[in-house]
Amino acid sequence: MLELNKLRSEIDEIDKKISDLIKYRQSLATKIVRAKKNVFPFDPKREKKLLKKILNYGLDPVMTERIWRQIISFNLSRQKIMKIGILDNDKYCLAAFESCFGPYFESKIFKSKLSLLNALNNEKVEIAFLNKKESEFDDKVYELENVSDFPSTDMFYKSKYSILIKKTEV
Amino acid sequence: MLELNKLRSEIDEIDKKISDLIKYRQSLATKIVRAKKNVFPFDPKREKKLLKKILNYGLDPVMTERIWRQIISFNLSRQKIMKIGILDNDKYCLAAFESCFGPYFESKIFKSKLSLLNALNNEKVEIAFLNKKESEFDDKVYELENVSDFPSTDMFYKSKYSILIKKTEV
Repeated sequence: MLELNKLRSEIDEIDKKISDLIKYRQSLATKIVRAKKNVFPFDPKREKKLLKKILNYGLDPVMTERIWRQIISFNLSRQKIMKIGILDNDKYCLAAFESCFGPYFESKIFKSKLSLLNALNNEKVEIAFLNKKESEFDDKVYELENVSDFPSTDMFYKSKYSILIKKTEV
Repeated sequence: MLELNKLRSEIDEIDKKISDLIKYRQSLATKIVRAKKNVFPFDPKREKKLLKKILNYGLDPVMTERIWRQIISFNLSRQKIMKIGILDNDKYCLAAFESCFGPYFESKIFKSKLSLLNALNNEKVEIAFLNKKESEFDDKVYELENVSDFPSTDMFYKSKYSILIKKTEV
């Protein structure tokens, strides 16, 4: 029991250190937004590079993506509560959405792909989240861009999900 | 741009430190399981105490619960890939399940509460995950125990979810 207690208090110390680092990371992320002069904070290219780097540190890739998506998305939400449209037409879309963006944004559920694409095109939402199989669109009609897929590391949802934004916002 | 690059490389350093701490934490968790002589590794009472402590470190509580659920569940899965039954009868159950246990276990979907309770009672699954509103059972028939609720910090799913295990396993 003594050994168990020692191990547990060591875990407590590590949890405190991780918390402090995440807190400090938040303050740096806030400074970055200021340095970028308050542009739209969602930067999927930077996020991809960041995740790729972290995936090299040797943790389980699935867990790594899940944890850092929460860290990144929460930071984003402190800059702006973005409006995200979700195409809710399959079993896993809400689970995938929450693993990707967390419960930190204003989410709006769409039942048809066209209504979601139109909402994004007309800036009623700022981001669209939908099954990758449904993510193609007519680029003569929509000025949209597929900027990222989730998850990048596993197939828990039997499918990938795509993240679209309006082209002019990049 | 110089300032931005400096901030970003500072974030990279912090991400590396967080990764190293999570990795070290995993090794301690493995030692704990050994010290406990390989009992069933799921210990919801300990998890609750742990989370309560971490919630005091001043990070956003919703993000904190999401991140540490992934850390804890992944560690658990390294000890044992538990069989978890999910009552899939509402919109958010899979999202809540994944935020709670991650994509690390063998999950089995049930459409009726009774079939899930029976599967748990007959040890076909080791854990049941279901809407809290559905979590009552006849304790003359079922030797089960409600050991935890998820999430403890928010109502993103419009409902809480309950975690049941078989009494004899405690």
